[in-house]
Amino acid sequence: MNFSSDTSAPAHPAVLEALLKANTGAASSYGADKVTQRLRARLAEVFEADEFDFWLVASGTAANALALACFCPPTSSIICHREAHIQMDERGAPEFFTGGGKLHLMDGEGAKIDFDPLKDYLDDFDPRNVHATPPAVLSLTNLTECGRAYTPAEIARLAQRAKYASLAVHLDGARLGNALAHTGATPAEMTWKAGVDVLTLGLTKTGAIGCEIILLFGAAKSKGRELQARAKRAGHMPAKMRFLAAQAEAMLEGGLWLQLAAHANAMAQKVAAAFVEDGHDLAWPVEGNEIFVTLDEQAFNDLQEDGAQFYEWPGGSHRFVCSWATTQKDIDDLAASLGRSMRR
Amino acid sequence: MNFSSDTSAPAHPAVLEALLKANTGAASSYGADKVTQRLRARLAEVFEADEFDFWLVASGTAANALALACFCPPTSSIICHREAHIQMDERGAPEFFTGGGKLHLMDGEGAKIDFDPLKDYLDDFDPRNVHATPPAVLSLTNLTECGRAYTPAEIARLAQRAKYASLAVHLDGARLGNALAHTGATPAEMTWKAGVDVLTLGLTKTGAIGCEIILLFGAAKSKGRELQARAKRAGHMPAKMRFLAAQAEAMLEGGLWLQLAAHANAMAQKVAAAFVEDGHDLAWPVEGNEIFVTLDEQAFNDLQEDGAQFYEWPGGSHRFVCSWATTQKDIDDLAASLGRSMRR
Amino acid sequence: MNFSSDTSAPAHPAVLEALLKANTGAASSYGADKVTQRLRARLAEVFEADEFDFWLVASGTAANALALACFCPPTSSIICHREAHIQMDERGAPEFFTGGGKLHLMDGEGAKIDFDPLKDYLDDFDPRNVHATPPAVLSLTNLTECGRAYTPAEIARLAQRAKYASLAVHLDGARLGNALAHTGATPAEMTWKAGVDVLTLGLTKTGAIGCEIILLFGAAKSKGRELQARAKRAGHMPAKMRFLAAQAEAMLEGGLWLQLAAHANAMAQKVAAAFVEDGHDLAWPVEGNEIFVTLDEQAFNDLQEDGAQFYEWPGGSHRFVCSWATTQKDIDDLAASLGRSMRR
Amino acid sequence: MNFSSDTSAPAHPAVLEALLKANTGAASSYGADKVTQRLRARLAEVFEADEFDFWLVASGTAANALALACFCPPTSSIICHREAHIQMDERGAPEFFTGGGKLHLMDGEGAKIDFDPLKDYLDDFDPRNVHATPPAVLSLTNLTECGRAYTPAEIARLAQRAKYASLAVHLDGARLGNALAHTGATPAEMTWKAGVDVLTLGLTKTGAIGCEIILLFGAAKSKGRELQARAKRAGHMPAKMRFLAAQAEAMLEGGLWLQLAAHANAMAQKVAAAFVEDGHDLAWPVEGNEIFVTLDEQAFNDLQEDGAQFYEWPGGSHRFVCSWATTQKDIDDLAASLGRSMRR
Repeated sequence: MNFSSDTSAPAHPAVLEALLKANTGAASSYGADKVTQRLRARLAEVFEADEFDFWLVASGTAANALALACFCPPTSSIICHREAHIQMDERGAPEFFTGGGKLHLMDGEGAKIDFDPLKDYLDDFDPRNVHATPPAVLSLTNLTECGRAYTPAEIARLAQRAKYASLAVHLDGARLGNALAHTGATPAEMTWKAGVDVLTLGLTKTGAIGCEIILLFGAAKSKGRELQARAKRAGHMPAKMRFLAAQAEAMLEGGLWLQLAAHANAMAQKVAAAFVEDGHDLAWPVEGNEIFVTLDEQAFNDLQEDGAQFYEWPGGSHRFVCSWATTQKDIDDLAASLGRSMRR
Repeated sequence: MNFSSDTSAPAHPAVLEALLKANTGAASSYGADKVTQRLRARLAEVFEADEFDFWLVASGTAANALALACFCPPTSSIICHREAHIQMDERGAPEFFTGGGKLHLMDGEGAKIDFDPLKDYLDDFDPRNVHATPPAVLSLTNLTECGRAYTPAEIARLAQRAKYASLAVHLDGARLGNALAHTGATPAEMTWKAGVDVLTLGLTKTGAIGCEIILLFGAAKSKGRELQARAKRAGHMPAKMRFLAAQAEAMLEGGLWLQLAAHANAMAQKVAAAFVEDGHDLAWPVEGNEIFVTLDEQAFNDLQEDGAQFYEWPGGSHRFVCSWATTQKDIDDLAASLGRSMRR
Repeated sequence: MNFSSDTSAPAHPAVLEALLKANTGAASSYGADKVTQRLRARLAEVFEADEFDFWLVASGTAANALALACFCPPTSSIICHREAHIQMDERGAPEFFTGGGKLHLMDGEGAKIDFDPLKDYLDDFDPRNVHATPPAVLSLTNLTECGRAYTPAEIARLAQRAKYASLAVHLDGARLGNALAHTGATPAEMTWKAGVDVLTLGLTKTGAIGCEIILLFGAAKSKGRELQARAKRAGHMPAKMRFLAAQAEAMLEGGLWLQLAAHANAMAQKVAAAFVEDGHDLAWPVEGNEIFVTLDEQAFNDLQEDGAQFYEWPGGSHRFVCSWATTQKDIDDLAASLGRSMRR
Repeated sequence: MNFSSDTSAPAHPAVLEALLKANTGAASSYGADKVTQRLRARLAEVFEADEFDFWLVASGTAANALALACFCPPTSSIICHREAHIQMDERGAPEFFTGGGKLHLMDGEGAKIDFDPLKDYLDDFDPRNVHATPPAVLSLTNLTECGRAYTPAEIARLAQRAKYASLAVHLDGARLGNALAHTGATPAEMTWKAGVDVLTLGLTKTGAIGCEIILLFGAAKSKGRELQARAKRAGHMPAKMRFLAAQAEAMLEGGLWLQLAAHANAMAQKVAAAFVEDGHDLAWPVEGNEIFVTLDEQAFNDLQEDGAQFYEWPGGSHRFVCSWATTQKDIDDLAASLGRSMRR
């Protein structure tokens, strides 16, 4: 009953098989190997993209910070939600990688940025004011920090307004697979077709060991060299790159990442149902693999006693996360634990 | 016949077996897992150390830059050899991680820092001069960039002078195993017993997928929290840490890393012998797994034609590197190619 | 009728006389001159302080950023009000000087930080959470951005809670003279006696050409060398330091700075009275030299036509600022312009 | 007999008169005042330039670092002489302002960069090598750190090669007036006509209180907004800008800066003659206002006893600097002191 995080799960067996397969003979270092080259074609297919560039890193914080640093000069800022991972959980990585850029925080329900305050802020900002820090990037997260999914149309509306103000648009897709599985949108529809310039595609939470892909779409492709230079000087250009590429390849092969995300989402719906049935309120609709629920003391204690792992969340709810490895037994055990509480 | 780099080699099978073994069930993220905890005990044993702390990263550049940033304030400098990896091959990573610190370059044969110029520089530096950048760290590399090995006594002499000037001592041990195998020194003798405060222990070149350990010895242990904070904000705190720890564990188990390093060194001696026999001059004595040789045009062309891979090196020589995966057949092929050249 | 800013005013004649006086003969550079040395004794007297160090810079942004960088590591954050100058008007200077530190924004009426939310935030912050950025400094501003004055007791209460959490306390005193003149507190009572570790004492707005003093009180004195090093590498160690020191000396001599601040405050009360008499609402009580008033369209237009200079302010009010150079005629002209509006 | 530095001299009276004159009435802040606007026309005239932008700062370190940061990305490097002020005497300011860029050091007699090593370095540098830090700026200094003057032709030759490699060309003109006075070149000939993109024009050493002008020539003008943004966030946008502009105006008026520089140069020739006559060797030809001479112990002691102020210089010589304020009496006293030594 480990619902603490999708990063607590092991890697999917296909990922390890891919590592074993990649581990034969000598290969060029730093991304000049065949696996990495092959991955390019696969990404073109998955994202229906001709014009793009990419880089592989092993952590989501690195992927976000490198992506943002290519678009936010040190004298500018990144607009993001008040609860965004880049604000709350990355120990100032965006500030570090941008060389001292700022985050400009916006509100919005379910950690989704509201259109109107964004529009107002951009309308009112006077670019001639040298004292104030001008926004250079809009960063969205899908799934959001509350497990909500933006639709492509929602992203497109925000992105369009941002682009009108000459901002670049970044998508933190640490759980993009879950958002795609929920909305039924294609990777292309949720990203470059909606105006996303640079994507952090997370595969770690979905089932890899540690593999995130930074994708630069369309004109943003011109940042490819800078991205590599920044990756290198941040220590994110591992010599034996083939082992990152092999993870990515295994996850994308045959749509495995989307299948694993869909499984995690389905399990999350079952967890949510168990809570609702037991009379608990969900803090947010479950639109991916995360459940935020308000537990009473009894249920909290029973779950703890029965060994369920989950996190208390700021705002008073508790977070449960499903992964590719969550089983029906985990659900049954959770339901049983909740049932025990009910019976009293 | 791939002698281009020890990073072109695959990972040792034991490393991949360890990954498979670690890939079972849920585990705490970010280093709170059991494999990482177990590694601590193993490191204590390998380094005969009670007082130490450590962190795992996937690249040598990251390991060096994080280690240095804990000891060099942005207003200070790091003394290193003019040819050091941190100066030549890390795209300014030390400057980035320290927040704008400087590298102060020293000379010395075979990329080993000479004692006298170091002493003179430290003797002459006036710490009251607020305009000049004061040194805060001495960074040594073993093996050096020329494949030379410092002895523990050589390190101790330089370290002692540095410490007298209140500098911290860093050792870039990207190929430490090779230096240990060559000198016969123990890990402890080559590091903290010789005055090293912080070590970058490279296991990637020795046989891992991507695994470097930053070790803080003795009083430097107090930097452990800062090191973690810096690692986090640099994107070097991967969620599924157990897969880094498993690599380290596999390499250290039963002294595998030293055996692999010894093998690479032995192969390098054979390569060197083949060159010498063929009448070529070695640029430097071979004290590890790297051979620097001056090739005439004929030998260069023959080797290229026969598919040998190696690098031209600044200064006019050519670099050949052996790894755990170098075979007797590689040596024989090289010798045959050279022989072909001779026969003409 | 220039009420746009106290920085639009010229310098007080005594300041220029001091420059002329300092401009005789050769003097040691970089602060080793006699004027700077003499200033130390004067500061000891003004602040009733034995243990302190100081540095002179020419701009408030520089003074704040240098002061903060000495106390906030790059991995930490500075707590300040959402409307603080360091957040709104310094183009990311604190992030730049700290090497990527963050600002953590707090609310509070009149740009004064409320005690309870500060307490709650510090109570709840878990220093073991390596992912979240820990606070290292509390930065207060007196006068606040809304022209409100903290009392020494208010500062002491906030400072005490901050210190309990091991934070350093910074006071942005760009208009400290005005706050002192309003509250009647002594410089010592408003600063180190209330728990302030590092003060940015602004003299520019009060009447200098460009002169701000960073003061390190008590144990914070140990940061003196670091402050100088940071000032040097930020280009804030002008060679002919005596001309900064001479400005400071002239302003502090005989309490001139407090007299000038008192004059500006008195003029501000007259401006406020004129507005109130004319039926306009003040956005905030006038506790220094700034007036925030809500103007109707008629009054706005009349004032503009009559050549009054002032700024529209975020939130819907208009800001008028008095300085040492504001005259009774300025007040009379303003009142006349408002009266014209009334007469219609 | 103060020959310690031209920064030990007071400001020229005309500069203080200009401050007094500027100190009348209210003026717009941050460079929107009339004096600053007027200065633009004056600079156009002095530099015979239509296309340019500029910014005023109070210190040479700030001027250099801001100028360089506009042209050197954090992943790149600045080529300069090993003894350049930006390397030796600015406490890492270029690294700080560029966000971690590097300095690439070149050799050359008299602190002038030799053409051939520069050409070789640029010829050999492989821009595809992501591991090495590519050069982005060539920074020259005139006068050099050894008091030597580049001719326009020498600058043009170096600049041309740099531009061929797409580098920007920076000129540190802390003592540009002295170089112009020595060579007879015009400001335009020595700067943009010779290929200089960005100039740090120092007026402080020449006779101002503290005033340096960053000039962006030709296409480099497009960096004007970035320069202002960087100046702002570095605390180099003082509110009462008119007092910086007034200094610049006074110095440029009627060619005063060149007259003062010529005076200092003439005094330096007299100092040099006194040393030569006394049998001392000059380390370098005197081509500006600095004299580097090798003193024997006797002369050293006599000069010290007689109260002469000067610096020991790295490399074994002693530096004497003349300024606009150096008098014939200073020369006579120096000669007398040397004569005393001779008489024994």
